[in-house]
Amino acid sequence: MNTEAPLWGIIGYLITPFADDGAVDVDMLARLTDRMIEGGVHGVAPLGSTGCLPYLSDREREAVTETVCGRAKGSVPVLVGVSSLTTEGTIHHARFAEKAGAAAVMVLPVSYWKLTDDEIFRHYERVAGAVSVPVMAYNNPATGGIDMKPEFLARLMEISNITMVKESTGDIGRMVKLMQLTDGRAAIYNGHNPMALAAFAVGAKGWTTASAHLVPRLVVEFYEAVAERHDLSAARALFMDLQPLLDFIVKGGLPRTVAAGLGMLGSDVGPLRAPLLPIPDEDRATLRGLLGDLLDIEDESKHG
Amino acid sequence: MNTEAPLWGIIGYLITPFADDGAVDVDMLARLTDRMIEGGVHGVAPLGSTGCLPYLSDREREAVTETVCGRAKGSVPVLVGVSSLTTEGTIHHARFAEKAGAAAVMVLPVSYWKLTDDEIFRHYERVAGAVSVPVMAYNNPATGGIDMKPEFLARLMEISNITMVKESTGDIGRMVKLMQLTDGRAAIYNGHNPMALAAFAVGAKGWTTASAHLVPRLVVEFYEAVAERHDLSAARALFMDLQPLLDFIVKGGLPRTVAAGLGMLGSDVGPLRAPLLPIPDEDRATLRGLLGDLLDIEDESKHG
Amino acid sequence: MNTEAPLWGIIGYLITPFADDGAVDVDMLARLTDRMIEGGVHGVAPLGSTGCLPYLSDREREAVTETVCGRAKGSVPVLVGVSSLTTEGTIHHARFAEKAGAAAVMVLPVSYWKLTDDEIFRHYERVAGAVSVPVMAYNNPATGGIDMKPEFLARLMEISNITMVKESTGDIGRMVKLMQLTDGRAAIYNGHNPMALAAFAVGAKGWTTASAHLVPRLVVEFYEAVAERHDLSAARALFMDLQPLLDFIVKGGLPRTVAAGLGMLGSDVGPLRAPLLPIPDEDRATLRGLLGDLLDIEDESKHG
Amino acid sequence: MNTEAPLWGIIGYLITPFADDGAVDVDMLARLTDRMIEGGVHGVAPLGSTGCLPYLSDREREAVTETVCGRAKGSVPVLVGVSSLTTEGTIHHARFAEKAGAAAVMVLPVSYWKLTDDEIFRHYERVAGAVSVPVMAYNNPATGGIDMKPEFLARLMEISNITMVKESTGDIGRMVKLMQLTDGRAAIYNGHNPMALAAFAVGAKGWTTASAHLVPRLVVEFYEAVAERHDLSAARALFMDLQPLLDFIVKGGLPRTVAAGLGMLGSDVGPLRAPLLPIPDEDRATLRGLLGDLLDIEDESKHG
Repeated sequence: MNTEAPLWGIIGYLITPFADDGAVDVDMLARLTDRMIEGGVHGVAPLGSTGCLPYLSDREREAVTETVCGRAKGSVPVLVGVSSLTTEGTIHHARFAEKAGAAAVMVLPVSYWKLTDDEIFRHYERVAGAVSVPVMAYNNPATGGIDMKPEFLARLMEISNITMVKESTGDIGRMVKLMQLTDGRAAIYNGHNPMALAAFAVGAKGWTTASAHLVPRLVVEFYEAVAERHDLSAARALFMDLQPLLDFIVKGGLPRTVAAGLGMLGSDVGPLRAPLLPIPDEDRATLRGLLGDLLDIEDESKHG
Repeated sequence: MNTEAPLWGIIGYLITPFADDGAVDVDMLARLTDRMIEGGVHGVAPLGSTGCLPYLSDREREAVTETVCGRAKGSVPVLVGVSSLTTEGTIHHARFAEKAGAAAVMVLPVSYWKLTDDEIFRHYERVAGAVSVPVMAYNNPATGGIDMKPEFLARLMEISNITMVKESTGDIGRMVKLMQLTDGRAAIYNGHNPMALAAFAVGAKGWTTASAHLVPRLVVEFYEAVAERHDLSAARALFMDLQPLLDFIVKGGLPRTVAAGLGMLGSDVGPLRAPLLPIPDEDRATLRGLLGDLLDIEDESKHG
Repeated sequence: MNTEAPLWGIIGYLITPFADDGAVDVDMLARLTDRMIEGGVHGVAPLGSTGCLPYLSDREREAVTETVCGRAKGSVPVLVGVSSLTTEGTIHHARFAEKAGAAAVMVLPVSYWKLTDDEIFRHYERVAGAVSVPVMAYNNPATGGIDMKPEFLARLMEISNITMVKESTGDIGRMVKLMQLTDGRAAIYNGHNPMALAAFAVGAKGWTTASAHLVPRLVVEFYEAVAERHDLSAARALFMDLQPLLDFIVKGGLPRTVAAGLGMLGSDVGPLRAPLLPIPDEDRATLRGLLGDLLDIEDESKHG
Repeated sequence: MNTEAPLWGIIGYLITPFADDGAVDVDMLARLTDRMIEGGVHGVAPLGSTGCLPYLSDREREAVTETVCGRAKGSVPVLVGVSSLTTEGTIHHARFAEKAGAAAVMVLPVSYWKLTDDEIFRHYERVAGAVSVPVMAYNNPATGGIDMKPEFLARLMEISNITMVKESTGDIGRMVKLMQLTDGRAAIYNGHNPMALAAFAVGAKGWTTASAHLVPRLVVEFYEAVAERHDLSAARALFMDLQPLLDFIVKGGLPRTVAAGLGMLGSDVGPLRAPLLPIPDEDRATLRGLLGDLLDIEDESKHG
């Protein structure tokens, strides 16, 4: 059983592209996976919030898992989102991901009814017990409706293959607290884009970000500055450059804004799944400006 | 096209019972439906939060819809919950419910990604346009993750067959505001148990409540006091009696507590679907006490 | 020792008028008190939020207390707000109010540092112990920063002369819960304008409202309909008439909007104390329209 | 006019000590000021939240200002908190602090009534216009009740001598956003203890902290590691050591916990002002343990 934390650095969130008839476009998904890996990311993550996981059927989720795992094999590890409302559903997808070659699975305790701590713990215990790959516990009350405090996450990490935590509340104090509670045992990942610089500064191991679809090289460069070279001045400069784009894609909703941005960069990822609608024209203009600025910076950085 | 509001009074929320193997127990569901109607409710509502809608597969939802509509036919109107994350999914279930004989369908805009007003409006417009039965817009940010303000709900009601609104925020001011904004045109339903007396006092047309599974006669009696006879003193006395039970089932989670209560009353509704777990033993003892008190009151009221 | 609840019905909140030099205008305050009493209110309440209590010096608070108590003597009971950040300060003002003839004092646990339950309880205990008049515990987390739950308020009411609670959270469920916890012993007052109809319906004893400055007769008429005659239809009609004004004065901030309204009705109450600024011109126009409509209704009601 | 930012590094918050009769103990305050400066802090800050500003009379505030400014003269800059509910009161204290020798004044827009943006802006404009020293705008909705977003703070900084912002929301994203909006023009200070490492990493200029009363040398050492040497590994190690104490003093309330800690370190700072009560015995035991651990580390660090 491999219970280490197989993920680090920039883990690019993959969107789920659709064909005009509304079906998942697996060919485009394969190309997006290739493109992101060529951009230098250290891992890829299908079926997260960005990938519109909850809007997909079980069959669609399986197709996405197979496509991305097949494509990334041998180059970077794949983190597959396997959350479902029911425990049985989550176990099903976790096992499927393991067989498909996922390096790890990510589990968000999606709530409808407010779950008790016992229910959440038992849910994780059963899912983790059903697979051999490491499990990442994911805290994101804004989308999942459940808030797991550092004390609870530390308890979850006593389950042997729950070795990673992803925090998306945006509260840096929680990350620090979790590190202290686990004596550094926890591999912590940041899922809140505006907090990326702070997260790496306090010791996060990775950053899962959909921005890797749009400006992978700059994001990787930022990671190297802050996490590998501890060059705070360079990291700050890069982060201030990235900040307006990060802000924009978070505010506008990742699937909507990243789909629009990919279209501008030449990849037509098809219609969004209703009720999601495309971003309005004025937002498209803003995004075009932000991307233009960053691609110029990326260029300079390559030639400079 | 029938665009009136076909629902009023006590609309009993139905839980979804399961067999020991985890499948939906349609026979028990039929008996629960009968039992509730015999209790005197003015309508029944399967596939709400109480019915664990989001934890069921499409096939299971269809079976529940058919069972309850078939059973209630000719006695009371049925309000079927048809919410899905996607617009297509919601339309599918709305059409199915209409064919099965539902008097109306209820739509909660379940969010994962925070939806824009345009997206929510278009979602409702498409769903309402796909059926002829009246649609109830349901606001419950605590479970659905989206908060529709009175101004927005009033705008939704300009769609011809969206004639009903159910408010579950627990803010009585919103109900008043919505009445004022729609000049009394809106048929408003209360979905927040602790607010039932206040809601009827300000003019709500109905109360959707899972408590009708446990003490249907008292709940109906309360309704008649406040809404039909405007007898505030009697209504207050009944509501104070009911309040501890309402408080208990809301705090403990409706599917968990109502399932436990039904068991105590002789109907074994089977295991909960994981991750939901049964309520702890000390809570069962509390519930037994609360039910005992209320059944005594119901008895006295019958014989008194 | 008088520990009954000496207040009921419409208790009009008094603003604090200022002269052009910024000093408290006690002559105008006396006239405003007279005018409100002539309007038919059942009590008056200086030095609440509406009266800008926290913006006044100790001497100014004493002058306001003396003026209003002197003026109302023999006609209606006076409820004086005596909250201060420190316990000593609160005791000082409570004793002053008692000597000046207040029927009761109101204490909001103003926080700066988040107070513990023990600190709040001890604060109330010491203040209540320092006077013989009844004390009203006032819960308003939005202005005071401290939220006292029904369970805690019920505990406070075990102190012998804390016989009244004013709830301003806007959560009708809390009022019901408090009634249940105290077996009806608690005299409960509503301080959240949009909740007035619901509050009286569930059994509130009074409503403290600044709207009594502007449309006292309509507010009193509403009270009689709902609380004395239990005529829900008439009460609803009146409340729907009042609702836009209540909404407006709450949203714009009571001291600002009521001062503007009093000016329109012929009482120049002087400048607001900085940092408060007058409401913008467009809001003045709205207020003028709302007042005009209600004065017409008041007229009709008198002559009809 | 000096409009630069005269503060950096560790700015120690001073508590206000009281004598047994409840009066401010200016002798002890002088000694606490000396002790903190000897500990190596880069500035001292009386009359913040830690100093219980809102619980003091105007005369007491003046005595504290004079004592600390007199004592720190020639060694470190003094940042005096001058917030009052009214604009006139704030101006009075700002002028007093300037005359007493303060290097800068800090203004928190204390709310009772929710202030409009115009009111807050005008408040700052008038206060800043009344003095020549630089002004620090302080955002702390948790105690002050008003939340100034980065966009608004950037607007405030267009006023010539508002050159510093202190952010205490705990949202690191706001600090980053403010830096980006002001093109690095803003001198930003962190007031949220658990965020100290992250704040310096993203470029904060200083940290105002009451922990400087208890472990000044470790706090200064931490500052040098992260802000001067950019040695993230050393800074993280020190911060993980400090974290349990920071957590403890924030959770228990700074005046209560720091007073208890100072007592353990040999400075009797007298009773707290009611309604504040001393921390319970079990918390005292915890604090004693935390302080012991850190003093050992401080010792090792000196001798190591």
